Amino acid sequence: MAKIKLSDISTTAPKKLDKEVIKANTRELIAELDELQNLLYAQRRHSVLVVLQGMDASGKDGVVHNVLGQMNPLGVRVQPFKAPTEEEMEHDFLWRIHRHVPGKGMIHVFNRSHYEDVLVQRVHKWVDEKTIQKRMDAINDFEKLLTEHNDTHILKFYLHISPEAQAERLEERMQDPRKMWKYNANDQEEAKLWKQYRKAYEDVFEQCNNIPWTIVPADHNWYKEYIVAKTLKDTLKGLKMKYPGLKQK
Amino acid sequence: MAKIKLSDISTTAPKKLDKEVIKANTRELIAELDELQNLLYAQRRHSVLVVLQGMDASGKDGVVHNVLGQMNPLGVRVQPFKAPTEEEMEHDFLWRIHRHVPGKGMIHVFNRSHYEDVLVQRVHKWVDEKTIQKRMDAINDFEKLLTEHNDTHILKFYLHISPEAQAERLEERMQDPRKMWKYNANDQEEAKLWKQYRKAYEDVFEQCNNIPWTIVPADHNWYKEYIVAKTLKDTLKGLKMKYPGLKQK
Repeated sequence: MAKIKLSDISTTAPKKLDKEVIKANTRELIAELDELQNLLYAQRRHSVLVVLQGMDASGKDGVVHNVLGQMNPLGVRVQPFKAPTEEEMEHDFLWRIHRHVPGKGMIHVFNRSHYEDVLVQRVHKWVDEKTIQKRMDAINDFEKLLTEHNDTHILKFYLHISPEAQAERLEERMQDPRKMWKYNANDQEEAKLWKQYRKAYEDVFEQCNNIPWTIVPADHNWYKEYIVAKTLKDTLKGLKMKYPGLKQK
Repeated sequence: MAKIKLSDISTTAPKKLDKEVIKANTRELIAELDELQNLLYAQRRHSVLVVLQGMDASGKDGVVHNVLGQMNPLGVRVQPFKAPTEEEMEHDFLWRIHRHVPGKGMIHVFNRSHYEDVLVQRVHKWVDEKTIQKRMDAINDFEKLLTEHNDTHILKFYLHISPEAQAERLEERMQDPRKMWKYNANDQEEAKLWKQYRKAYEDVFEQCNNIPWTIVPADHNWYKEYIVAKTLKDTLKGLKMKYPGLKQK
């Protein structure tokens, strides 16, 4: 596979699409997702892990709120990963991740994930390159474990926004009282490292691709939400699940 | 490396050894271990995982009580693994294991371990051979993760007893009121599967040997305890640890 170059991939919705039509499609998809998730929960055979990655302000919280959070919370859990705690730092980098993977019947959503350990840590050079390479191998082994040993279907999304869209959204956080709580002076600093992040992401897409990534054009929220809903729906549909019927003793 | 044949390895202490001398040596080793463990805890750089495997009545509890349990419990944790719970069964087989691995500075002892998933489950044919092979690969990946990403030093002990010694000890559990609580009618059934267990163990020694196993002759408790204490002491000594001194702000 040729290496993905993010600068070659559009961050916007295709021009020919009608926003209102797509939004209606997304509503239908969400209704289908609710039904499929119920089936997944009832059958308790597969599990689903949704990994959300993307730059600051790429809209991860929006996807959680408007798509993934629309399903029954009994069978859906959202787990954000922030900077590791002291206890977490005393273990291998996958230790805090592994305890939050979905059991059979569950959908877990990682808002940021184990990938931060080969992204933010790499960009800031907090760990050396040799360690980064080893971590990528370890991530591949780990995702294989989940896939092969627990029928976990992993969906990895990169929410792809342009630097301009990001700047605009970060600016909004300073102006809009409803968004100010999200403002973090550090985000402006991180935004300056755009090129380094882009390179680190491109390496991840190349080296941690046994389970493929979906690059989601994310400048338009309506299109981003549609793509995530559609990808998840197609995956769940592909499992050909059935209700288990009455339990036989 | 030639495949290990357990029937070629003695289960008893070498004849030339003097039991009382060895017991005195073990006491000295335990005193040294206490000091080294304190250093490990203070330095918080390495961690140690001791895996204890062996047939029923091979004396795992004795090693825990007489050797490993002699160190400061602040920095030593013993984790037994029994039949998995319903929640644990809904995850990959390493999920319940991973959460109990040692953080930096700690010594964790696994009384039985992830190896049961390629031993008891294999002997009883609860899982197919293809899954067993995949599990062995997953175990190797997992042990590599702990070793490379958290400086975890893994010591794997197989407590090697003869079928005769086992039969004697199981019999004792039926007679000695202090041991009756350990009696389990099922143990006699498991003992009949001796050959199948021996073969399964030999495959484990061959295929999960990136981190080597120590085969401990275990018919004599005094010798078994000496070997475990000595192996652990040599490992800790090899870390060349130093007290960290006063923390610089």
